[in-house]
Amino acid sequence: MKREARDEQLERMQHSAAHVMAEAVQHLFPEAKFGIGPTIENGFYYDFELPRPLTPDDLPVIEDKMGEFILRDASFVTEQMSKKRARELFADQPYKLELLEEIPEADVTIYKHGSFWDLCRGPHLNSTGELRAVKLTRIAGAYWRGDEKRPMLQRIYGVAFESEEQLGEYLQRQAEAAKRDHRKLGKDLDLFSTHEEIGPGLICWHPRGALVRRIIEDYWKDEHDKRGYDIIYTPHIAKLDLWKTSGHWEFYRESLYPPMEIEGQHYMLRPMNCLGHILIYKSRLRSYRDLPIRYAELGTVYRYERTGVLYGMARVRGFTQDDAHIFCRPDQVEDELLEVVRLAQFMMSSFGFEEYEVFLSTRPERYAGTAAMWEEATESLRHVLDRLALDYEEDPGEGVFYGPKIDVKLRDALGHEWQGPTIQVDFNLPQRFHFCYIGEDGSEHSVTMIHRTVLGAMERFVACLTEHYGGAFPVWLAPVQAVIIPIADRHADYAHGVEADLRSEGVRAIVDDRSERMNLKIREAQLEKVPYMLIVGDKEVASASASLRARSNEDLGPEAVAAIKSRIKTAIESRS
Amino acid sequence: MKREARDEQLERMQHSAAHVMAEAVQHLFPEAKFGIGPTIENGFYYDFELPRPLTPDDLPVIEDKMGEFILRDASFVTEQMSKKRARELFADQPYKLELLEEIPEADVTIYKHGSFWDLCRGPHLNSTGELRAVKLTRIAGAYWRGDEKRPMLQRIYGVAFESEEQLGEYLQRQAEAAKRDHRKLGKDLDLFSTHEEIGPGLICWHPRGALVRRIIEDYWKDEHDKRGYDIIYTPHIAKLDLWKTSGHWEFYRESLYPPMEIEGQHYMLRPMNCLGHILIYKSRLRSYRDLPIRYAELGTVYRYERTGVLYGMARVRGFTQDDAHIFCRPDQVEDELLEVVRLAQFMMSSFGFEEYEVFLSTRPERYAGTAAMWEEATESLRHVLDRLALDYEEDPGEGVFYGPKIDVKLRDALGHEWQGPTIQVDFNLPQRFHFCYIGEDGSEHSVTMIHRTVLGAMERFVACLTEHYGGAFPVWLAPVQAVIIPIADRHADYAHGVEADLRSEGVRAIVDDRSERMNLKIREAQLEKVPYMLIVGDKEVASASASLRARSNEDLGPEAVAAIKSRIKTAIESRS
Repeated sequence: MKREARDEQLERMQHSAAHVMAEAVQHLFPEAKFGIGPTIENGFYYDFELPRPLTPDDLPVIEDKMGEFILRDASFVTEQMSKKRARELFADQPYKLELLEEIPEADVTIYKHGSFWDLCRGPHLNSTGELRAVKLTRIAGAYWRGDEKRPMLQRIYGVAFESEEQLGEYLQRQAEAAKRDHRKLGKDLDLFSTHEEIGPGLICWHPRGALVRRIIEDYWKDEHDKRGYDIIYTPHIAKLDLWKTSGHWEFYRESLYPPMEIEGQHYMLRPMNCLGHILIYKSRLRSYRDLPIRYAELGTVYRYERTGVLYGMARVRGFTQDDAHIFCRPDQVEDELLEVVRLAQFMMSSFGFEEYEVFLSTRPERYAGTAAMWEEATESLRHVLDRLALDYEEDPGEGVFYGPKIDVKLRDALGHEWQGPTIQVDFNLPQRFHFCYIGEDGSEHSVTMIHRTVLGAMERFVACLTEHYGGAFPVWLAPVQAVIIPIADRHADYAHGVEADLRSEGVRAIVDDRSERMNLKIREAQLEKVPYMLIVGDKEVASASASLRARSNEDLGPEAVAAIKSRIKTAIESRS
Repeated sequence: MKREARDEQLERMQHSAAHVMAEAVQHLFPEAKFGIGPTIENGFYYDFELPRPLTPDDLPVIEDKMGEFILRDASFVTEQMSKKRARELFADQPYKLELLEEIPEADVTIYKHGSFWDLCRGPHLNSTGELRAVKLTRIAGAYWRGDEKRPMLQRIYGVAFESEEQLGEYLQRQAEAAKRDHRKLGKDLDLFSTHEEIGPGLICWHPRGALVRRIIEDYWKDEHDKRGYDIIYTPHIAKLDLWKTSGHWEFYRESLYPPMEIEGQHYMLRPMNCLGHILIYKSRLRSYRDLPIRYAELGTVYRYERTGVLYGMARVRGFTQDDAHIFCRPDQVEDELLEVVRLAQFMMSSFGFEEYEVFLSTRPERYAGTAAMWEEATESLRHVLDRLALDYEEDPGEGVFYGPKIDVKLRDALGHEWQGPTIQVDFNLPQRFHFCYIGEDGSEHSVTMIHRTVLGAMERFVACLTEHYGGAFPVWLAPVQAVIIPIADRHADYAHGVEADLRSEGVRAIVDDRSERMNLKIREAQLEKVPYMLIVGDKEVASASASLRARSNEDLGPEAVAAIKSRIKTAIESRS
């Protein structure tokens, strides 16, 4: 409760700061027309129509003016009035008048402080003097009401905190997040690109990003081999009718790509991998002895998302799920779920995620299957989480219509949340596609189907990893693990010998033998977050060694090449 | 010339056999109406309208009747006559009358022998007695003129050879080919399936087929790593405009999937992987020092083919090319081509193909680039083939419009030809997408682009491998390498111990502990073409050994488990 009260106070602070900012803008631009000024996560904004475009230089000027108004400690006063009176008050504010017309009540609420009043429900601080630490962060354009046919207003974003210290921490976190933004690092480290010519949300994986992905995929495949999964491949398109049978066409229409007509048949890009897996399951008669069957696929799917919500590799239109479908007998469900959760935990810890939150979503109002089936499966999921002593939060009624599920959210090094593993029991598809197994009694029994991903999507997962590690991937994932830097041209042969030596043991080493200064090469290798730099000159050539430096710029001193090799190999094997 | 003469004689034989078959059918079914009766590769057929459907039992009866006519040794006699006279002759043969109307000349040629005459240009044997060995092979339905709106006729296929011995060899080869048909083996060995629900020509790779593919892909990736390729991933769809810029929309329209509209933009499934690679190349400025750049992708593409030409995994609508694009300076072209051909040779021999034919296609009438560019590139290709002492055939004017190419056709164990590696120089895309490199002189220079695949497509290649090996994949490719068969239940623990031992060394071993008879298990493992069977009973348990049997059914005798392990590992490593 204490936290809630604090959140409420912060919310008041943000909102009041927006009003004070508007007052400052009104003072600096008396012709300003005001749009809306809501609070948002971690801050606030206000939209204005102004006589000239703002520049970043305007922000400190506005901040200074806000400082004056804060010092005046003007009280926030609320007043209820008729719409008619409000219309007079906002006579020269066309956007406010428009908003007024949409309020169904006869009376409206106004908040005033100093020389500024606004159409507003509040709540606010008692007075402007309660504002402790405010910072305007950026300017953007925004269509009035988000409608591109309406005027483009100017939006100023800001943040407000309870102390300068908190603001400082926030700004520092923001700066760190900006440095770790996978879109920025994706460019700096040459990991991936998107292209207007191809279309938004469609990722081209450059050599280094593709290598990180491939290492993850190989590791994923090995772990799935060990755990009795069969890895398969199924097509990216299928007849539309199949998606009608499955229910995807009915329930997810808005995120599907439009059908393509071939020889009078409609085909569609797949939004999910499950249907091919089901058809392979159904291609033979399956006996109770054959189960569980676990089909896994690194399957690329395509889903339509509005351009506006696309975000680097984290939210895209085409992505490769690390998907699997488990077909099992009812008596196997719990063990299968247990092993899936264990695998998910194993994978998360392999990639350095120790913090995550687990959510269990239960039966919604509309559902496939019977209430008893839901109860049993949900109980299995609870039981599995209990057996693993995992804390979880229950989301009552938040399951998808086809079955209960477990969602895991990862927390990266900056505390940002990412969608992680998902595990879903499905009562819908077994009914719609009538698949079964032959029991010991010789008759048909219904199969339980489990959908699961443990990384989610390669695109989002690599984005998340990039931000988690700030681009400094652990040695086993680093696209280049060692750069060998010859001090002078005469050391180049030795450098290439060391390179070959390291490569023969599977270390991804390269020589930087450009005719540039050594310090520049070291700096560039550090910017590329290469874990190890081996600098080699006369002394090193003579002693079969290298002067070792870490990407943190730590000088690890001279070390025999054999020792360096084993150091790097140990780091790779320990995945540290 | 001798061979040509022999081919001509064989052709005459096939054609005359078709006439004799028609004569026999006329004798057995006096109401028969005759369609056409051409020769085809390795044989002949004739289409008939008959009063009842034929069954396979009819074939020996027709063959017997043909035998009689052959014994009579009737001469083939030709006669030229006016169309009017021919119309009278074929008055009760509506299909012949229809054919007659389409002959522009005033006179037509008739061939007669015995009681049968036909509208025919010949040539034929001198007399039916020259037919040595004839066999009718099968019955099929065929629309008149291939038009599904016209009547369905009955087609009888046959073959004719110069001797019974040749016929016998041919029939044996056919039987062997049928046993090796990858569509049959794909089902028997549970490698893949297609599904009417998904659509024709779209492959679902079952666990065992997918494992073969994965082993090939992993091998392919390793070899590409070693050879300085960068493996990348690019999206399966892109804006249609990109395919207009490239020329694909203009030149390959009939094999493209129809566009999909999203937010007013048209997108298309990719028929080729090159454009994503070009955009990655173009995403940075490239210097002469950066070249060659070799981007490789196991890229799935989609091309429309008529349902009628689809054929198992060998001709499909969606396939994964083992694609690569090399961007290099003109002075690097020849070395790059040389290395590509070497890699192709290496890959073919790795997979057991020692026989292949090489074709060099040169400038067609319409072409991109200049004649000088073509001359230079073609000369480089010739030079590379000469340097490698490779025999090749030149196809003058048969290059695609954008550049000269080398095509390699593989011959499988039965002598069938398969499309293998292709290497193409491209003068078109560098112009259309304006990509270049910065030379030592600081100015822009045009890049040479090479497209190449060394396996072609994973689907076709695995189909080819399956037929080449008759499903008995070499040990390193076999999805299951060893089956351990306990003689009685009390040997199951030991069997599982041996399984774990083999698996720990990377051998794909399984235990068959079903309660079935040992002989049945051995037979089934042989049908599944598992390279090694380890039978374990009391004696083997006591001596830490197994009784080893090969899939050829060869009894390899008792052998210590350690020795078996090293035997299998040696077989894997030698890829034999």
